Amino acid sequence: METTYKKVLIITDTQVAPLYLEDVKQAFSSQVTVDDYVVPAGEASKSMEQYSRLLDACISLQLDRKSLIIGLGGGMVGDLAGFVASTYLRGIDFVQMPTTILAHDSSVGGKVAINHPQGKNLIGCFYNPVYVIYDTDTLLSLPLSEVRSGFGEVIKHALLSDAEWCDDLFQVNVSKLSPEQLNLYLSKGIQVKADIVEQDEKENGIRRHLNLGHTLAHALEAELGYGEITHGEAVALGIWFSLRASEKHLGASLPTEKYAKWLIQNNYPIHLIVNINKNRIIERMKWDKKTVESQIHYVLLEAIGKPAVITIEESKLDELLTDFLKEVSQIDERN
Amino acid sequence: METTYKKVLIITDTQVAPLYLEDVKQAFSSQVTVDDYVVPAGEASKSMEQYSRLLDACISLQLDRKSLIIGLGGGMVGDLAGFVASTYLRGIDFVQMPTTILAHDSSVGGKVAINHPQGKNLIGCFYNPVYVIYDTDTLLSLPLSEVRSGFGEVIKHALLSDAEWCDDLFQVNVSKLSPEQLNLYLSKGIQVKADIVEQDEKENGIRRHLNLGHTLAHALEAELGYGEITHGEAVALGIWFSLRASEKHLGASLPTEKYAKWLIQNNYPIHLIVNINKNRIIERMKWDKKTVESQIHYVLLEAIGKPAVITIEESKLDELLTDFLKEVSQIDERN
Repeated sequence: METTYKKVLIITDTQVAPLYLEDVKQAFSSQVTVDDYVVPAGEASKSMEQYSRLLDACISLQLDRKSLIIGLGGGMVGDLAGFVASTYLRGIDFVQMPTTILAHDSSVGGKVAINHPQGKNLIGCFYNPVYVIYDTDTLLSLPLSEVRSGFGEVIKHALLSDAEWCDDLFQVNVSKLSPEQLNLYLSKGIQVKADIVEQDEKENGIRRHLNLGHTLAHALEAELGYGEITHGEAVALGIWFSLRASEKHLGASLPTEKYAKWLIQNNYPIHLIVNINKNRIIERMKWDKKTVESQIHYVLLEAIGKPAVITIEESKLDELLTDFLKEVSQIDERN
Repeated sequence: METTYKKVLIITDTQVAPLYLEDVKQAFSSQVTVDDYVVPAGEASKSMEQYSRLLDACISLQLDRKSLIIGLGGGMVGDLAGFVASTYLRGIDFVQMPTTILAHDSSVGGKVAINHPQGKNLIGCFYNPVYVIYDTDTLLSLPLSEVRSGFGEVIKHALLSDAEWCDDLFQVNVSKLSPEQLNLYLSKGIQVKADIVEQDEKENGIRRHLNLGHTLAHALEAELGYGEITHGEAVALGIWFSLRASEKHLGASLPTEKYAKWLIQNNYPIHLIVNINKNRIIERMKWDKKTVESQIHYVLLEAIGKPAVITIEESKLDELLTDFLKEVSQIDERN
């Protein structure tokens, strides 16, 4: 790897380091000082404490404004390393090397952040990587839950854009994907997201459509404890609720049955939400960062490819969520 | 004060709060929820811990993306409140209400930051306030050390731009300023800085000229302990060294004697650097964030209005600093 950077810090995690760290380090010429910092795998590392320790490391390694930070890992590493890069010396160069399918999503759009005990991604910036370096070959060797997680965002992109693509995806068995299929779906997803982000970099308008499924997903992740469910699996469950809510609240006509069937066939962890505390979930959704003046704004679909941000009264949301959890529980018993 | 913001958080400090906080709060209509958070006065509040507590407060007050953060105070409050505003929910609106003369400088240019034990402003962002609200009447009631501090940056702007203005300033007794003089000098200073920042928002080029005097100033502040010397007073001393170094290293012809006389007449705290540890100061200068690959880049003057970023060898810097400290010590003994 040719580079003009004299000092590089690779931030990665305990899961990714044994697999790829040495390969990436070997790729640099001996002219470059390459250090690494390995954080514990899992969403819990996106904390203020870990962020602060990483900044300490940048300082003790004497990274300067011409140095580079690489985020080697999934979305957690990308978000954390990106936030460090965006705020160290008021911003130094950042390269993302995503090692999960989910990160095809988070590497587009410049969102970097850490979590707060009260909610995900509450502290962060908009900061674009100078490059995203991607190795599709390795992505299919991931554990199945990671592939499922990545597909949570892929199917979101399909629902936001293209009915035909949705029908195509409902045929997919995520455990039997070909590299060609994966490449195709990731490129399509990146295109959908890039089109939206380009029109609204700072998330004042249509970029909020990308939050389809995320209001419930963030609440689920916080309620179950970060790391108990992958982000994309939570999104996939959140989308299910959004589809049902869109039908009941907007009278939309949507392929919700097909979608639920696809979730079950691909073993998305629907059992995790069967006994969830509904009231706490609603409280968490109210504090989700997309909340404006404590009303609940929700991304629903008027049709596939026609998302809209809708304000839902808390009582109505309660009713919709009660019905949804009942449905999930019945389906879970049957399976 | 008419505003569309429903929630406002005023961040201020223990020195400013008793003077202005209630007035500012009273200015809002009863439709607006106005909270405040008072941090201890002094540079020590620009810490990771205080930053983290402020974010906790934003969350527990349920500030959302349509809320406003106001920084009411000097440069410390502006930097801290601005960094909170820039990273809370990836950035919410920020208004600066500077209550010191020094803050005429820091409110221009969008630099927000906190300190690290290893150095000032090592963690931060570029983030512009939506407004800067300024009350010149109150500024002349400040303690004299604050006026001196503000004038450290004013005289820097003069040296960066205009020999005639410098001559004018060398006549000023900072304890006997008229409001008209102050208004004039602040406007001129803001204009100099705004012109430079406009050409180089992210500090890759000429914006570094604004660091005149700052490399030594930052080292002095860190070495003496934050709060032991005001920032602008440290800058004023740092500029003195830069003038001498420019003469010796570049052969520049500069009004260094007049400048030193002005410092002494206005009681700048030159005694604080008489017994300073030179080697530790050099180490600190090397780690200052403007350092590139551990070489020492220094802003010097080829002439008044002609700044340049010069690379100085460590041994040369040592020699220049040794001479300078000897000169300061002799002058201090005579006074």
